Amino acid sequence: MPQLRKDPVIGRWVIISAERGKRPSDFIVEPERKRGGFCPFCEGNEDRTPPEVLAYRDPGTAPNSPGWRIRVVPNKYPALRIEGELNRRGDGVYDYMNGVGAHEVIIETPQHGLDLFDLGVEQIEDVWWAIRDRILDLKKDVRFKYILVFKNHGAAAGASLEHTHSQLIAMPIIPKRVMEELDGYQKYYSYKERCIFCDIIRQEKESGKRVVLENDRFIAFEPFAPRFPFETWVLPKKHVLHFEDSQKVDYADLAAIMKETLRRINLALSHPPYNFIIHTAPLVHDEYLDFHWHIEIIPKLTKVAGFEWGSGFYINPTPPEDAAQFLKEIEPES
Amino acid sequence: MPQLRKDPVIGRWVIISAERGKRPSDFIVEPERKRGGFCPFCEGNEDRTPPEVLAYRDPGTAPNSPGWRIRVVPNKYPALRIEGELNRRGDGVYDYMNGVGAHEVIIETPQHGLDLFDLGVEQIEDVWWAIRDRILDLKKDVRFKYILVFKNHGAAAGASLEHTHSQLIAMPIIPKRVMEELDGYQKYYSYKERCIFCDIIRQEKESGKRVVLENDRFIAFEPFAPRFPFETWVLPKKHVLHFEDSQKVDYADLAAIMKETLRRINLALSHPPYNFIIHTAPLVHDEYLDFHWHIEIIPKLTKVAGFEWGSGFYINPTPPEDAAQFLKEIEPES
Repeated sequence: MPQLRKDPVIGRWVIISAERGKRPSDFIVEPERKRGGFCPFCEGNEDRTPPEVLAYRDPGTAPNSPGWRIRVVPNKYPALRIEGELNRRGDGVYDYMNGVGAHEVIIETPQHGLDLFDLGVEQIEDVWWAIRDRILDLKKDVRFKYILVFKNHGAAAGASLEHTHSQLIAMPIIPKRVMEELDGYQKYYSYKERCIFCDIIRQEKESGKRVVLENDRFIAFEPFAPRFPFETWVLPKKHVLHFEDSQKVDYADLAAIMKETLRRINLALSHPPYNFIIHTAPLVHDEYLDFHWHIEIIPKLTKVAGFEWGSGFYINPTPPEDAAQFLKEIEPES
Repeated sequence: MPQLRKDPVIGRWVIISAERGKRPSDFIVEPERKRGGFCPFCEGNEDRTPPEVLAYRDPGTAPNSPGWRIRVVPNKYPALRIEGELNRRGDGVYDYMNGVGAHEVIIETPQHGLDLFDLGVEQIEDVWWAIRDRILDLKKDVRFKYILVFKNHGAAAGASLEHTHSQLIAMPIIPKRVMEELDGYQKYYSYKERCIFCDIIRQEKESGKRVVLENDRFIAFEPFAPRFPFETWVLPKKHVLHFEDSQKVDYADLAAIMKETLRRINLALSHPPYNFIIHTAPLVHDEYLDFHWHIEIIPKLTKVAGFEWGSGFYINPTPPEDAAQFLKEIEPES
């Protein structure tokens, strides 16, 4: 059983995956990433993943058989396990609990060799619907406090399989970075009685200098104080607490703006590895809690690592105004 | 002039280095790291660095000439600039100021091809003295709030030159991660009226299962909730606020334990890139502020990046108890 442990100084929970139990020699030989060769996410290989928990498929086709457009399966090597009690306990100054949670993979297309931004807008829209369906289902489990949805694209960004997919982890804690965002949100709200993200959108639209793209319901821009070159945020213009509270028109516009933003990042930076993370409110919240969900995209361009991790101090060599200009200048998809 | 910008939600300051001004094409071709070839840190090449601000050298030798054991020079490509006023200002919801600070390099030995842990204990002790001397000097500058001391070892950990060196950045803000540690420290103190780090040392010594090494004045152990495999902390057993408040006996013991800890990490993991960061209290502090300085060592073993950066959520495949066992079992240096 994986364990969730809390750093007693910082208050950050981490998963200690004793079952994976990596020994020193496991790090010496960097594990080979399957590029080419057999792919368990391809159509026809449905028996090589755990049984699907959701699929959008052709009428009349059986579960775990070909005929699907989107398929969601449990992660074969889950970071957290679905069975069991949390069993919160202490050991002197330390706190821990069982690593209970859900870890699922959203296979975004049956076709190998495509990136998310290569898919049609309707297909990308279906990815959001699948994520929403899974969140609504997992929300019923009272053990879970947060559902983290993210995409690792490219080996250097942590993807262990090439076939385009996103991931979802339902967990019994709220990750540190999310807590910080919620705290910052609250602090601003209690001072201004306005949403900080709504204010940011207003200011970014007015100045225009960091905006990359905009459609009816979404805006994509480079944040004012990005840690990484070409870090890009995509926000719904309407103030909405949870990703899963969006409507059909929202998901359609989100599909369109994500496709075009990722396509431009891909062109500008020559197929960079990247991550995106959906920042949304926790599942359980008291009546004062409010938030404005959004997506943060981080291309993986720089090698620098431990220093930033250890200090929380970031040096970004590309001003976001320059990055926005580069991304804006790429010709729109015809 | 570099700019310091504050994220309005999270409250994290980052350096936007407009002068480095990296364009998309700069990321496409990963810049070549100089391995072999000319080294500006080697003895005899003193004219290829900015003039030294400190050197421990043989009597009678001139500044910026051979004959030194340790040499401290300004970084040729500084993240922050020493001249100018902070000029704090706002722009709507955003806050920024000039990138004023000092960025220095501690060249730990005149000899190329050695690692810090290859040096003699007295030579490593001199590294601590040089850092201390520079901190005491920079502390006089009232513009600075924090001095971050760190080491990047190996290209993958962010080192751009192979010749063993540490770095120091004096800055007009307190980095986010340091603030979090101070906050966590205070929270525990106000509840328990005890230092969390002193309590951790007590508990680690008692259980022994995460301890790697110990000498009279220092202890090295794997933290209870590490983000990374083989993350290792080195703490003075005596409660001391600032790194620079240590005494001769402390620096001698610190040199011995750091040499042996890094040597073991190097052996266990086959010369991994690594970072270490000195966590010490800010320069300016009110009377209630307290802390217990220490060093955090992070071997760079895993590729995963943006997801953890974006979420603050870490999955560690190596339990710290296992890591401690591996490091303990390596035969001590004779």
